[in-house]
Amino acid sequence: MTKLYNDPAEFSDEQLEGFVDLYSDRLAQVPGGVISLPPKTPQVAVIVGGGSGHYPAFAGLVGPGFASGAVVGNIFTSPSAAHVYSVAKAADQGKGVVLTFGNYAGDNMNFGIAAKMLRAEGIDTRVVVVKDDIASDPQFDNRRGIAGDFTVFKAMGAAAAAGKSLDDVERLGNLANRRTRTLGVAFSGCTMPGAKTPLFEVKTGQMGVGLGIHGEPGIRDDVRPSAEELGRLLVRTVLKDAPEEPGGRIGVIVNGLGTTKYEELFLLYRTIAPLLRDAGYDIVHPEVGELVTSLDMGGVSLTVFWLDDELEPLWTADAYAAAYRKQGAPLGTIDETYEGKSTALDEDSLVEASDAALEIAQRVRTAASAVADLMHEQEAYLGEIDAYAGDGDHGRGMVRGSDAALEAIEEAPEKAGPASLVKSAGRSWAMQAGGTSGVLWGASLEAAANTIDDAAEDFADDDLIRAVRAFADSMVTLGGASVGDKTLLDALLPFADSLEAHGGSLRQAWAAAVADAKESAEKTSELRPQKGRARPLAEKSVGHPDPGAISMAMILELLGKSL
Amino acid sequence: MTKLYNDPAEFSDEQLEGFVDLYSDRLAQVPGGVISLPPKTPQVAVIVGGGSGHYPAFAGLVGPGFASGAVVGNIFTSPSAAHVYSVAKAADQGKGVVLTFGNYAGDNMNFGIAAKMLRAEGIDTRVVVVKDDIASDPQFDNRRGIAGDFTVFKAMGAAAAAGKSLDDVERLGNLANRRTRTLGVAFSGCTMPGAKTPLFEVKTGQMGVGLGIHGEPGIRDDVRPSAEELGRLLVRTVLKDAPEEPGGRIGVIVNGLGTTKYEELFLLYRTIAPLLRDAGYDIVHPEVGELVTSLDMGGVSLTVFWLDDELEPLWTADAYAAAYRKQGAPLGTIDETYEGKSTALDEDSLVEASDAALEIAQRVRTAASAVADLMHEQEAYLGEIDAYAGDGDHGRGMVRGSDAALEAIEEAPEKAGPASLVKSAGRSWAMQAGGTSGVLWGASLEAAANTIDDAAEDFADDDLIRAVRAFADSMVTLGGASVGDKTLLDALLPFADSLEAHGGSLRQAWAAAVADAKESAEKTSELRPQKGRARPLAEKSVGHPDPGAISMAMILELLGKSL
Repeated sequence: MTKLYNDPAEFSDEQLEGFVDLYSDRLAQVPGGVISLPPKTPQVAVIVGGGSGHYPAFAGLVGPGFASGAVVGNIFTSPSAAHVYSVAKAADQGKGVVLTFGNYAGDNMNFGIAAKMLRAEGIDTRVVVVKDDIASDPQFDNRRGIAGDFTVFKAMGAAAAAGKSLDDVERLGNLANRRTRTLGVAFSGCTMPGAKTPLFEVKTGQMGVGLGIHGEPGIRDDVRPSAEELGRLLVRTVLKDAPEEPGGRIGVIVNGLGTTKYEELFLLYRTIAPLLRDAGYDIVHPEVGELVTSLDMGGVSLTVFWLDDELEPLWTADAYAAAYRKQGAPLGTIDETYEGKSTALDEDSLVEASDAALEIAQRVRTAASAVADLMHEQEAYLGEIDAYAGDGDHGRGMVRGSDAALEAIEEAPEKAGPASLVKSAGRSWAMQAGGTSGVLWGASLEAAANTIDDAAEDFADDDLIRAVRAFADSMVTLGGASVGDKTLLDALLPFADSLEAHGGSLRQAWAAAVADAKESAEKTSELRPQKGRARPLAEKSVGHPDPGAISMAMILELLGKSL
Repeated sequence: MTKLYNDPAEFSDEQLEGFVDLYSDRLAQVPGGVISLPPKTPQVAVIVGGGSGHYPAFAGLVGPGFASGAVVGNIFTSPSAAHVYSVAKAADQGKGVVLTFGNYAGDNMNFGIAAKMLRAEGIDTRVVVVKDDIASDPQFDNRRGIAGDFTVFKAMGAAAAAGKSLDDVERLGNLANRRTRTLGVAFSGCTMPGAKTPLFEVKTGQMGVGLGIHGEPGIRDDVRPSAEELGRLLVRTVLKDAPEEPGGRIGVIVNGLGTTKYEELFLLYRTIAPLLRDAGYDIVHPEVGELVTSLDMGGVSLTVFWLDDELEPLWTADAYAAAYRKQGAPLGTIDETYEGKSTALDEDSLVEASDAALEIAQRVRTAASAVADLMHEQEAYLGEIDAYAGDGDHGRGMVRGSDAALEAIEEAPEKAGPASLVKSAGRSWAMQAGGTSGVLWGASLEAAANTIDDAAEDFADDDLIRAVRAFADSMVTLGGASVGDKTLLDALLPFADSLEAHGGSLRQAWAAAVADAKESAEKTSELRPQKGRARPLAEKSVGHPDPGAISMAMILELLGKSL
């Protein structure tokens, strides 16, 4: 509902003043509408129009490469013949005029009269009427024009900008019209400014199939389906009405009617695009957004524009309209061969691993496999205790992370040393586990790997202890937590401290440190949730241990077995 | 309210799939968000982000010349540190990373952790926090970020694309931040997908001043003002908070929050732009539209971005983001010197008028003045009878048309002949009177003028009769009506027929024809409204004469007095 106005009667004219001020670099206001500032080289004038309430149609489509002028009627009302005449006269550059609009009685009459007036003055004037709405009539010539206005106007605007003759612009407009089909659905009606009730209503959970863009309700009501079901309905129905000699390349528009949000349109496109490709079509320069609206109506439409050799360059041509800017050039600066960064090891950059390092690497491979198995075993339990502390996905996250790490290690070349393997495992864990703990695990594994030298001829116990310390330091630095904050640090830090302090054999020191880690991890059930965490714990976590500390202690215990 | 979804829990991820499919020419999906396909020349990576629900912020702002990547959180929820890390890592091109986002606790924490993670891996990472909302706190550093995200992100995206160093991109981002101020107002709250009530409500006729973009209500409620009053409030409040050394050039954003339509934003801009100019500012590349939204919230905000020599080229630079395309080049093809077509006579093209023609021209001048006087006298009466036939504006339209014709004639050079004068009068009438009858009058006067030769040495009665016939023929051809259709033809055609048939002195023939015209015009009160007219008459017109026929008869009678 319109909330911003001065005198409601002046709304349409006043908003047009602001619009023209805004785009004064390319537009000028004339009685009845707006025109594009003339190109330096005269061209055929393509005049679009109809009632208001369809923004960006029609004034927003004026500019270089698109419409030469737009006649702006009152809301959902054909502009007068006088206004059509006025806009066309102002936009005429001596190369002839095409008047183009959707197929409605009032528009046919007023644009028709204006065409006669212009011809009477010697201005060669053609008329192209858009008829894309397949729901409105079985016969093509009786159909009304809805979002297909966009493809037909665009084709003629591009043809005119390319310097085509009036005969050609008219012919290409009619060709585009015959190769454009649209089906729309409405979820809710639209309300005229100042009115208290919408022009029509759609019952909760229903949708109107075959809506018009002037508040005409759909031709039948259906249960409102899921986005996927709706996508299938739209594609199936529109493709059934394909023109003769459809070819294999199509332009596509998924158009929002007003209050259906962009995210919903993207969701719908996710279903529509693969279905069209499965039907054998290449999709060329698809458009998803609000292009031909109907005030605050809720709903969407699918338009398919079957291209041919003449129409495709018109559809893909640049345009610089107020509300529609299209350009091809900057894409040239993009590396289009990009296929994502690999987290796999690059063989060429491998340090040649010593025999001693390869022996350690073998133990890393075994350990990675064992950790992944353990996490699969414990997934349900970890999820259970995380249901108190968080959202119950800790087990799943640890499975994904340890699986990703194992996969990276298995794909690594045979000659990779332990530093290379752990680094690769860390990257995969961070990217694929999800969640903050996944990133902490992955980044800290990398930090540990950085302390190891694959070229070293021998490895001492201290090397492992140093790697553990680097792992723990990274967790502290990145996570920003302390012991007692009910995080995995409650297991890891007692472990690292104990390991360093114990002395004696590594096996014994590790076992003692694991005992300390397990005890501390269990004690997290007594801790209260802390503020200042990235994701504060729920109060209900009191009485339950921290799942991150538990899984950390489990893994440390398992690793001790391979020493 | 969201109406299109499959599994609501998958909504955010699924819509992102469709979005990335749509813009696969420039974007790639990565865990946690989207990145721009890398440029051929590596550059600083500018990573924007925050919760969803703000489209086109943040994913729609990714692309060449703007953001290198966007982290996409759930609705109104900070993305996790892991996702920030993931997107930044994927977008990093070895030239360093800037993380930038609005000033909220959750974002500060998660982006902060991610920055530490990235730095721990040796990726130089900077953080720029946007603080533009002047309503949220008197102290700059405590303010939250709203639509000013756009100016700060744009400045850094352009700087990075221009090859600036990491130090420079960070510095320019902080500079842009310190020179950006926003004030917003809300007309209605927003509703989370699936929720049944909005996050807050604004009472009918009220507005919340100082809204947040996460469903935070305004800091105080006021009576909702007119668009002009609101424009004054926004400009006054924002300018009061100008930064030090403001300079004279500003970028401006009038941002729609979700359901406030483009036409309303243009209307508001109509007030805002002149006020900013009156305050001494040059407005540089203003933006009016939906740039940072808040689901389906109703409301608007005004952002002023005080430019300096470094910031202006960043603000005006080209960009090719999914939802924001800006280009300068095509404007070069426009004739920017265009100042509208003149309907005034071009002296150079005047045919040299004979003495006889100049004598007729003098009578045309006198007649035009008399017709304009007559229409002023009869305006009220013509309006009265038009209130039955139409919308009561016939008197006004005839006054505007005849005044415009007189003005064109008075401005014509002294040596203009009658053909030149009448042609000029017709053009002005058509362009300025408005309405279909205005255009018919104007175009038909031109048709009459085309029968006259200003170079002729003498003028006969037949010349006038021929001009009248051309005038009448034009009315028939353009209007498409017939005698009996209750139009001005009911006066004009009996007049023309009678004039041609009568013979004898012109004065007598004219008088007889006027009598026929008046009789026929009065008889239109008996006619019923006809179908097939451009604007069908109301049924209530029965019993009242057609105002067009009456004014036509009056003017013909008046013209007879000058013969």
